Amino acid sequence: MSRPSDLSHLNRLYEMFSKQILEDYFAFLRFKSISSEPEFSSQVNDCAIWLKQYLEESCFQVELWEGDGFPVVFGRNMQAGPDKPTVLLYGHYDVQPVDPLELWTSPPFEPVQKGDVVFARGAQDNKGQTMYVIAALRAMAAEPGGLPVNVKICLDGEEESGSFNLKQQLKAKQGDLSADYMAIVDLGMFDENHPTVSLGVRGMSAITVVVTGSDTDLHSGVHGGIVYNPNHALVEILASLRDKSGRITVPGFYDEVTELSEDIRSRLWSGIDAATYEQVFGARATGGEKAYPLTESASTRPTLEINGIAGGYAGDGFKTVIPAKAVAKISCRLVPNQDPDRIRQLLIDYIRELTPDGVTVDFPAPVKGGKPVRSNPDSKIVKAVVQAYGEISGVQAGYHLEGGSVPIIADMLDTTGAELVMMGWGLIGDNMHAPNESFSLQRMQKGFITIARMLEIMGGDTAAET
Amino acid sequence: MSRPSDLSHLNRLYEMFSKQILEDYFAFLRFKSISSEPEFSSQVNDCAIWLKQYLEESCFQVELWEGDGFPVVFGRNMQAGPDKPTVLLYGHYDVQPVDPLELWTSPPFEPVQKGDVVFARGAQDNKGQTMYVIAALRAMAAEPGGLPVNVKICLDGEEESGSFNLKQQLKAKQGDLSADYMAIVDLGMFDENHPTVSLGVRGMSAITVVVTGSDTDLHSGVHGGIVYNPNHALVEILASLRDKSGRITVPGFYDEVTELSEDIRSRLWSGIDAATYEQVFGARATGGEKAYPLTESASTRPTLEINGIAGGYAGDGFKTVIPAKAVAKISCRLVPNQDPDRIRQLLIDYIRELTPDGVTVDFPAPVKGGKPVRSNPDSKIVKAVVQAYGEISGVQAGYHLEGGSVPIIADMLDTTGAELVMMGWGLIGDNMHAPNESFSLQRMQKGFITIARMLEIMGGDTAAET
Repeated sequence: MSRPSDLSHLNRLYEMFSKQILEDYFAFLRFKSISSEPEFSSQVNDCAIWLKQYLEESCFQVELWEGDGFPVVFGRNMQAGPDKPTVLLYGHYDVQPVDPLELWTSPPFEPVQKGDVVFARGAQDNKGQTMYVIAALRAMAAEPGGLPVNVKICLDGEEESGSFNLKQQLKAKQGDLSADYMAIVDLGMFDENHPTVSLGVRGMSAITVVVTGSDTDLHSGVHGGIVYNPNHALVEILASLRDKSGRITVPGFYDEVTELSEDIRSRLWSGIDAATYEQVFGARATGGEKAYPLTESASTRPTLEINGIAGGYAGDGFKTVIPAKAVAKISCRLVPNQDPDRIRQLLIDYIRELTPDGVTVDFPAPVKGGKPVRSNPDSKIVKAVVQAYGEISGVQAGYHLEGGSVPIIADMLDTTGAELVMMGWGLIGDNMHAPNESFSLQRMQKGFITIARMLEIMGGDTAAET
Repeated sequence: MSRPSDLSHLNRLYEMFSKQILEDYFAFLRFKSISSEPEFSSQVNDCAIWLKQYLEESCFQVELWEGDGFPVVFGRNMQAGPDKPTVLLYGHYDVQPVDPLELWTSPPFEPVQKGDVVFARGAQDNKGQTMYVIAALRAMAAEPGGLPVNVKICLDGEEESGSFNLKQQLKAKQGDLSADYMAIVDLGMFDENHPTVSLGVRGMSAITVVVTGSDTDLHSGVHGGIVYNPNHALVEILASLRDKSGRITVPGFYDEVTELSEDIRSRLWSGIDAATYEQVFGARATGGEKAYPLTESASTRPTLEINGIAGGYAGDGFKTVIPAKAVAKISCRLVPNQDPDRIRQLLIDYIRELTPDGVTVDFPAPVKGGKPVRSNPDSKIVKAVVQAYGEISGVQAGYHLEGGSVPIIADMLDTTGAELVMMGWGLIGDNMHAPNESFSLQRMQKGFITIARMLEIMGGDTAAET
């Protein structure tokens, strides 16, 4: 291969387009594409049309997959030919709502640049990361020889609100989506100077628990010492779901959990210690399984968290009631090979067993679970991203695993049959989903180069490895 | 004494006035004397003036104790002279709010009579019971010889909203309120045909518990397995406050609790069994201390009840947060000789001890506690009421103890130095504090006779005892 491994050709390529990229990025950010708020519908649709045009001008064949929800922007450029692999890139163009608006220092849909940093809703999640993807595709497609691999791109318009339309389309579009490799470019790392590639997201099972003692609230003077207060029943049940060591006590809960291989464990990013965590989040890191280090309990181990409890009156003042009902919301983050439906059932069975005589327990409104996902670190595409990260940063890239869940990834994986990489230059400080979201132009460039370099490597250019 | 023990003279006295009593009762009920809602202020004041006039027409010297709140109506008739004891009667003329109004079958302040039953807000609590008190005083005062004892009457205008003005007046009015005996005529019994006199109300200690883990809510995917979720900390603390047998585990909690004497225990009303309770309240009676029968755990034993819990999101749908804070409201009902301040401190100390590393606990907004009160069953006034109940019903009257708390009683007791009886013909079916409150005219008559007969006995007429 003729290109040097110092990536200067890709840096030059970025510099050549950087002014246009910034202009396009700002145009992209100005669409108020909040998918969860109906008043912004037309802006979400307009944003899809803008993307379609952008990709068409980049030598992509583009379709808008319309349906019950916002369109999926799907494009393909298969000019590399059948000898080259096909890489599917996933991102999304919808954004989170902007509340609380009063905490923004500039209007969320009027992007502003301060030094190297751009502030706007979506600046990182996921318009910033999508911007460097599509800019890299455009720049490479315009080069002599074009794209080094066949590329498909799938831009979701509802990632922030459940990916409803995309999920509905998956089966019908299986042929379109099929690919050898898939890159989800919607993730991040903890430290820009020590890049890591994500090897997994956790799955989820969630239940609502309702404990009922009576038809109406009762006076705690008259009925205290007689009825089994649903608040007491609930806290006793919930307190029994984990032991003192932080281990979840639901029988069978860990049966399918596989331990990390030593190889992966040794390359897991472990930069965040309890002290750093406390400093960054103002919270103590004392809640995980004591048998595992923080890095693992936060990502490679399953969790059980009470997301909400409510029963009786807990506002200002005092109401001496025994409530008729008490409610809890519980979610479990799952790891391979836990099955969301099985975990939900284990949890329900155990809670029934724990429920004291005198109250009843119900589990209304089941929430659809999500399967955990892991990338294979030996996959060519994972290795390509690790290599690109390493070349960009001058250090050996490591791995990390996400604590959160992105249910659409498991669905996309089932549909495409592709090998997966989860990647991105997002950082915690970007305030995704929060006021004053931001992204740096330096990472815009690094992202551009990562995508371009990954595609080169996938196309057969492994120069820097030698 | 010349009066026969069959009470026919008192029945005749009631019949003589019954038409006027009903008329006055309806006039009394028409005042919208809701002390907790400012829009009804003038009606509360008008009601006080009406009572002042009623008592003045009944040979009482009456004062309105004005202050920061609604007036206390205070009257006295000391014509029996220094050889006779002084009995202070306590009741209240303010009423509860009427919400939910749509559940009333007739307007709450337009009393209607259906058969023997009168429906209106305050029909029982406490205008109905106050009506028979003042009617009996008026009728007896008009008799030859007048009242058999010296009588003072104190009618609170804020019992339903904290007795603020009365509490403020207590010290200054100690001389006015001093009495040999005091009857709180604001209580009831479980079964009209098996009358019981109340020997006690429970005291109360209440605390708010706030567990804090972080400054803001955290994402349960990213932070699950790291932080100590305040919801978990809270349920673990709360679940540790009682053991499997229903016994409260707070160290020292039971130290001052005195067991009932066999004499009182043997005469305690025990008509409500678990099956009846379930039928009446639609709730199982499985929540008390297993070492004690229902009757005792509901009244003679202290309790600890979680009145409210809240943390995170527990509404429709699901928010996978780890909340910054979780809150609980806990109240304990106390029995002699538990001290509210000491119990609150024991609870706080124990909760601090139970709080896991990684979260902090606070106890904001302390609620003033109330001391438990017990009557002495050997007191002359308790015996007089027991005798009157017995004569009226033709059965031996028993005792019961209230599960609830009426903090003003302990304050009144401290002020007056009187021996106490807590009495009344209220029944659970009267819907006090609820829509369609009612009282029967039969009990109006029984109440009238109870007061009159008690005063006769206190004045020296013990004919029926022989």
